[in-house]
Parts: sequence; structure tokens; C-alpha cells
Amino acid sequence: MFDYTLIHQDARCAARRGRFTTTRGTIELPAFMPVGTRGSVKGVEVSQLEATGSQIILGNTYHLMVRPGEDTVSQLGGLHKFCGWTGPILTDSGGFQIFSLAKLTKITEEGAVFRSHVDGRQLSLTPERAVAIQEALGSDIAMVLDHVLGLPNERSRIEDAMERSVRWAARCQKAHTLQTQTQFAIVQGGLEYDLRRRCAEELSDLNFRGYAIGGLSVGEEIQAMYDCIEATIPYLPEDRPRYLMGVGRPEDILEGIRRGIDMFDCVMPTRNGRNAMAFTDAGSVRLRNAVHARDPRPLEEGCPCPACQRSRAYVHHLFNCGEMLGPILLTLHNITYYQRLVAAARLAIEEDRFVDFCREKFSGWHGAAE
Amino acid sequence: MFDYTLIHQDARCAARRGRFTTTRGTIELPAFMPVGTRGSVKGVEVSQLEATGSQIILGNTYHLMVRPGEDTVSQLGGLHKFCGWTGPILTDSGGFQIFSLAKLTKITEEGAVFRSHVDGRQLSLTPERAVAIQEALGSDIAMVLDHVLGLPNERSRIEDAMERSVRWAARCQKAHTLQTQTQFAIVQGGLEYDLRRRCAEELSDLNFRGYAIGGLSVGEEIQAMYDCIEATIPYLPEDRPRYLMGVGRPEDILEGIRRGIDMFDCVMPTRNGRNAMAFTDAGSVRLRNAVHARDPRPLEEGCPCPACQRSRAYVHHLFNCGEMLGPILLTLHNITYYQRLVAAARLAIEEDRFVDFCREKFSGWHGAAE
Repeated sequence: MFDYTLIHQDARCAARRGRFTTTRGTIELPAFMPVGTRGSVKGVEVSQLEATGSQIILGNTYHLMVRPGEDTVSQLGGLHKFCGWTGPILTDSGGFQIFSLAKLTKITEEGAVFRSHVDGRQLSLTPERAVAIQEALGSDIAMVLDHVLGLPNERSRIEDAMERSVRWAARCQKAHTLQTQTQFAIVQGGLEYDLRRRCAEELSDLNFRGYAIGGLSVGEEIQAMYDCIEATIPYLPEDRPRYLMGVGRPEDILEGIRRGIDMFDCVMPTRNGRNAMAFTDAGSVRLRNAVHARDPRPLEEGCPCPACQRSRAYVHHLFNCGEMLGPILLTLHNITYYQRLVAAARLAIEEDRFVDFCREKFSGWHGAAE
Repeated sequence: MFDYTLIHQDARCAARRGRFTTTRGTIELPAFMPVGTRGSVKGVEVSQLEATGSQIILGNTYHLMVRPGEDTVSQLGGLHKFCGWTGPILTDSGGFQIFSLAKLTKITEEGAVFRSHVDGRQLSLTPERAVAIQEALGSDIAMVLDHVLGLPNERSRIEDAMERSVRWAARCQKAHTLQTQTQFAIVQGGLEYDLRRRCAEELSDLNFRGYAIGGLSVGEEIQAMYDCIEATIPYLPEDRPRYLMGVGRPEDILEGIRRGIDMFDCVMPTRNGRNAMAFTDAGSVRLRNAVHARDPRPLEEGCPCPACQRSRAYVHHLFNCGEMLGPILLTLHNITYYQRLVAAARLAIEEDRFVDFCREKFSGWHGAAE
């Protein structure tokens, strides 16, 4: 259980076709995980989510500890039973939300003290508590608590946060008891390659079942992010899945896969869908635009999602009227788009043509669709 | 086509089990029609709607003429293709929305002049135009344009509006050309039984394929509505379906069926669902109430809807967080509740036990569920 299998290594780049097994099912890699922050991928019912081809979803520990609380979820039989998703679930540790969302009060060696973004009450998260919450939630993959910083930032602060993240990872590992759940470590270190390397090596020594690259897509240039991924991956164990946290656009997914990343999560397909933006092979399409008002074409020919069984004009009409179904349909389309993208990437890797696959996709995305 | 078949008349009351055929499928009667005002049952994808057991949905002519306009819908292949619902669709005529929603400027013998509730532009609706719009939409059942009044009201005004509604019905019939669509007439007359009778008789002479009772649930006492239905039905042709427009609560549906009504539509299951209210056999349940926060039970044991595959606690959590999925799940539950109710009613009628069926349901609803 929780084994990584390398199925095929692309002959022309670092992209790899793998598989990760959990007690709730196998995940074909590379994989994209839709974000179900509060026990729900916004606007999407579980059977619809299954139809998008999603294999695993993400839940946010921070949001779920705030509402409804991990005790409630646990008493109700765990996160899977609570939300009805029977496949694997990965929960993050809350580290990123403490950085991005809560009003952070203090970070010490012990942990983080912060105020809830909902009602302002004081909360704290230590490595041990992040583990306990995720065990109460009963997710299949739990993330260690890490200390996330924005970029750019001083090297000394980045180094401190990285070193703390390693110590916290060790504490998380020690606190972990749930046999049906595994833990992934998170590599920090900003854009300092030597710090990333040290972090990766020290975490590798702890022998986690999977490794994430965290603390990216937090203000740096996009090329700097790609370069940092490339500089970090050689120091991660080859026989473990690699997860790039919180990234990103379709092109970022492909750039990540090309460098050897196996797993991704991002709110972009769902959030952009709610905001009337559809991903297509010809670039992004803004459905509020009046140009679509009488367009009988689907968003994407051949896409099996419910939105693409209708016209662009219909989706435009729904957004124009403020109908809930507009955000729902585009959310389904965008998740389906991402899942078809990684499915096609998996096939391309198996056939050693992932580099060509990227080139084709990039040439489509290069021109705006409207 | 467009034939009504009486399958069984309950031996102990006026409830009847019938069937109505359209080019897009057969409707088992009594039937409940979810409301898809603007080409979408709010928050519900077509495959989810099918799973509720819905046989036919309603579209609103007024809303669709305002946005996106019937020409757009027609150019895109008609309302079915536009919204993806392949079963029968009934469109109302706009008469009720002119009364309830638009800023009415003037009603003359020619038609109604009013201002759009969206952008204030002046619009008009004549019987001929109501027919043309509904033909452009391509619905299966079109309603004649009627003159709707609120209650209470002066008898002379009610009589005028009723007589005008009869003349408009005749004009609608004359203007009608679409072979794949049939027209239903609408009986008006307020609570004046003699006017209802005259209207029913005069419309019966025009030989429509179906008859609606309109202008009820507009301010009168509920018993007065039931009595008026009972006073009107004897003057409607027995071999045509009878449709009670815009009604109502589950108990109103059963009271209508008991008096011989075959078809219903109402926004209540969908609107109340969006507002966190669920219909159950034990009465209505308000899911925002904190009492549900840790309740592991489904809304209704044995209900096959997606909401009932989760706990009340989960639905409460979704509303508590403002998650879109809360309104979606309760909308699906409530439509499913209504469809299971009429399905059970159909069976009870076939077995001559509809009166007992009503008694059982009423005793469940009598006590509030929380």
C-alpha cells in the first residue's frame, strides 16, 4: 500500500508515467486533484466529479478545522463519508492557509498561532495537531505542517523557515498513527537552490511515502518557478511520487510534468469556471463576452462534459442571467479539461512523445481563442 | 399525438390516473413539472433532473423573450436543444409574469404593454405574439395568453378579465401553426364560481387539447382555492388533462389531485431548496438550524437523491459555509420529493386508495419535523 510504481520514463524528457496505490484506489500519474476546500468541490456533486475523470480530490485542513471542525467530521464517519467521495482524498496541512488566509499572530518552534478568517477566534496549529486533525478527517494522504513564506524574501528567513519545516516534518512523522493514511513531506527553500537541495535531502532521509514541492507560485516569476522545480527534483527520491502544490495553469502543469512532477492541485479550473472563464485547446474563453451570444458551437469539440453538450450561447445566457448553472457547467468543463489534459499527457509519456505533446498544446494556447 | 388516456379513476374520489402523449414522450399523470424559468432549473444539470424522475419541465415565455430572446433560442435549434432537456417542455404564455413581475403599462383588447423587469425597455405581448414566441421556442405544450388578476378583486374586473381571456384564447388558437406543439387553454374567473363555469364552458367549446386553471394562489385563502378548483373541474372536458398553474405545497398537490387535477408546476421545491428548506414526509426541515450540525441521518430515509446519500450534518455544513452545493443538493432533494410524491399518488389511485394515501401523508406533515 502507498507504493509508487514507475510505469514508463519518457525517453526524451524527465516526464514519467507512474502509479500510486492507496487503500481507496489507485491513482494514475501524472494526476490532477480538484480542490474540495470545505468538503465540496464548489458546485459539483460527487457523481459529476467522477464523470470528469478525477481520481483523487484535495480537502483543506485549515478550512475543515474551522468549519465544521474535525471532531464533527470524525463523529460522522470521516471526510469520505461526510462528503460522499469514495476515492482517495489528500488533505493539506494548513500551512499554506495560515500564510495566505488567516491573520497570523505568531510562529514559534512549537507551531503557529493565528486567528480564524471566519470569526476571528484564536486557533493554533502544531505539527502534532496538524497530524491529529488529518487523522480525524481520515484522508488517504496527509501533508506535513510546513512554514510557508511569500517571495521575494530574505535568504535568512527562507533558511529559517526551511529548517523549521524539516523539524516539523520529523515531528509530524513521529506523531502519525493512522495505518490507512500516509504522509507526504514538503520541500521548502524559496528560490535558493542550495536550500531546496538541503531540504530535499534531509526530508529524503526521513523516508516519506511522497514528496511535495511547496512555497512556489507565491509571487515569483513563472520561469523562476520552473527553474526551481528543475533544480529541486534531482534531490528527491525517484521511487516516490512528487507533488507540486497549488500549481497551476494548464501550461504550468505540462511544464511541471516535463520536469518530473507527478501530482498537482489548483483552484484555477474551479475558480475560473465560476468566473465565466473556460479552458480550451485554443486558449481561454470568456463566456460573459457578448460575442458568444449566438454561437452554436460547444466550448470544445469532442469534450464529453455537460457544458459541451450545449452551445457557447447557452453558457453565455446562463452567466448573463446570473443562473447558478453557468458556474456549475464551466466548473465541470474546466475540471474535465484538466483531467483530459493529464490523461493525454500520460499517454504521450507512455509513447515517448511528451515533448511533442507539449509543443502541440502550447501552440494551441498561444493564440487567444477570442 | 397529444392524446389524453384515462387509465384509472379512483373509486373513492375524483383523483384520476392518466397519460398524456407528446412527440417528445409520454407523461404519466398526475405529474409535477419543475420550473426552468430561463432555460435552466436553477442549479440543476439535465442528467440530475432526469434522475429526479421528472417527466416534463416548464419554461417561462416572459423570461425567455427578455433574455436571450426567442429568436436566439430559435436560431440555436429551439429550447430543447438550447438547454439540453430532451423530454417534453411546457411553456407558459407570459400572462402571469406580466401580472406579477413586469411593470405593467397597459392592458387593452389587443394585448399587454409592459416594461422589462431587467432593463426597463418597453415590450408588448398579444395573443398572437405569445403564440409566435412559444412556437419559436418549440415547446411541446404552449399556454394561451390570459389576463391574470390578483385576489381579492372586484367582480366586474374579474368578469372583464375572464371574458378577455376567452377571446384571447380563441385568438391564440387561430394563430397557432406548429404541428409538433399543442395548446392548453386557461380558465380564469377568480373565486366567482359562475364565472369559472362560464369560462370553462366557453373554452371547452373551443376544443383545446388541455385545460389549465389559472389565477389561483394569488392572495386568496387556501380553502377558497380548493373550493374553487372543485367548483370548476365539473365543467372541464373529462377527456383532456387538467393543469393547476403555479400550485403549490405538497398538501396542495394532493388536494388538487383529489379533486381531479392532472398536472402541476411550482417554484416551491426549487426556491425553498435554495433557501435551505427540505420537504420530508415528517414536514419541512430547515437545514440552517444548528440542531442538524451533527445529525448523521439523511433528510429522508429511502430517498434516492444525492442529498440523502449524505447526512443532514453535511447539508447543514454546506449552507453554514455558503457552499453552492447546499442549494443544489436541496433542490435535487425537493424535486425528487415532489416526483416521488406524485409517483406514489399515481400508484395509490390505481389501487383506489388515494384518500387513505392523503390521510397518511397529511398525518406525517401535520407535525413539524424539528
